[in-house]
Amino acid sequence: MANKEKVTIVVSSGDLDKVSASFIIANTAAAMDKDVTLFFTFWGLNVLRKSAFNLRAPKIIQKLFSLLNRGGKERLPLSKFHMFGIGTFLMKYLMKKYRMPSITEAIKTAKELGVKIIACTTTIGVMGLAKDDFIPEVDSLAGASAYLGEALESKVNLFI
Amino acid sequence: MANKEKVTIVVSSGDLDKVSASFIIANTAAAMDKDVTLFFTFWGLNVLRKSAFNLRAPKIIQKLFSLLNRGGKERLPLSKFHMFGIGTFLMKYLMKKYRMPSITEAIKTAKELGVKIIACTTTIGVMGLAKDDFIPEVDSLAGASAYLGEALESKVNLFI
Amino acid sequence: MANKEKVTIVVSSGDLDKVSASFIIANTAAAMDKDVTLFFTFWGLNVLRKSAFNLRAPKIIQKLFSLLNRGGKERLPLSKFHMFGIGTFLMKYLMKKYRMPSITEAIKTAKELGVKIIACTTTIGVMGLAKDDFIPEVDSLAGASAYLGEALESKVNLFI
Repeated sequence: MANKEKVTIVVSSGDLDKVSASFIIANTAAAMDKDVTLFFTFWGLNVLRKSAFNLRAPKIIQKLFSLLNRGGKERLPLSKFHMFGIGTFLMKYLMKKYRMPSITEAIKTAKELGVKIIACTTTIGVMGLAKDDFIPEVDSLAGASAYLGEALESKVNLFI
Repeated sequence: MANKEKVTIVVSSGDLDKVSASFIIANTAAAMDKDVTLFFTFWGLNVLRKSAFNLRAPKIIQKLFSLLNRGGKERLPLSKFHMFGIGTFLMKYLMKKYRMPSITEAIKTAKELGVKIIACTTTIGVMGLAKDDFIPEVDSLAGASAYLGEALESKVNLFI
Repeated sequence: MANKEKVTIVVSSGDLDKVSASFIIANTAAAMDKDVTLFFTFWGLNVLRKSAFNLRAPKIIQKLFSLLNRGGKERLPLSKFHMFGIGTFLMKYLMKKYRMPSITEAIKTAKELGVKIIACTTTIGVMGLAKDDFIPEVDSLAGASAYLGEALESKVNLFI
């Protein structure tokens, strides 16, 4: 295990296309027997949220921000041409047609291949989230120094 | 050739500023005698499209998405302040004034310096494109495992 | 000094969340005794501007673009949900509440930890800026070949 080459990706975007790209690279690397870590931060945390609207957000400002920033892996918008969902609907259709996995499927595959899924502790509160808002596929919560520890040992580092 | 240091860049954005940054880094690295690969995916594929509207898109949903996502290297918008073309016009004017090459010129220079231009097979269909939509400057089409093969050998890896 | 591991980050975004992520990673790496360089380009240059509106922009087109692209580290918008400032106000509130440093504080810490702050010469003019628009915390101005020189020696390279 210690001798495997490492690939570490920061997923700071919650856009459907950017998140898809992250999982395509991560799952391909894991299938090539690399040791892969996905580190989700800022909007990327939306991918890991259990539900759309966080009723348990401790304070009113977080509730407001959580309402603005409704997430969940089924609801990620496109980074362009979201257009109230029309563009995103079209791309989801094309993803299905061309057998590109949905984010839900990609997370499942990632777990099967041993990809580590980490949520950034530093930005959880800032995004209006709390620890128990995350799906069980999250391996752990960690901060920037844990990220850098992995990154400094990795052959491929990306920020998406 | 095998001993040259490698630089590999994923170009996932089709925004004028991000694409300019990609070519500035790629062409500078190639001028420094590095082995450079640009791997275009998602909106980045717009840079490599022959024409704005893809009449040959095989199916109606692709035609619709292709109509939304009109591309071509002369038509890339800014990531900010595109403002129906006004901001983009201003930046193109300033790029010319400060002798920053246009994308068309940057692609020409890239080819002269031996930069490899690769289009991502996984996302071609999803973006409403077909193989013969691309400009002849594209060296080849390849998937995520080909990308990772390059990336794992590279000194500099970027995702733009 | 020469033996320290290097971390080099291109900051091409001027969005509050992306710039925060850049400084969190940079300052954490510097605190771990790494040799860190932040290379600001395109919208990232907004972080380093003295004032919002550049009255000294030499030509009218630059003045116009500078007016569109009003910057300064206190005025960075969010990449999403800026919503005329409402979303950005909410996140700034949450950043304060969760003791995430403001950009002004993050720059101060970066300087104390020895992080190098470099402004990209190639894009200064294109962004409607001039050399004396920058805050004194900028260590130097440099181009893409200087960036690549650093990047080729770095253990971690990111483009944000």
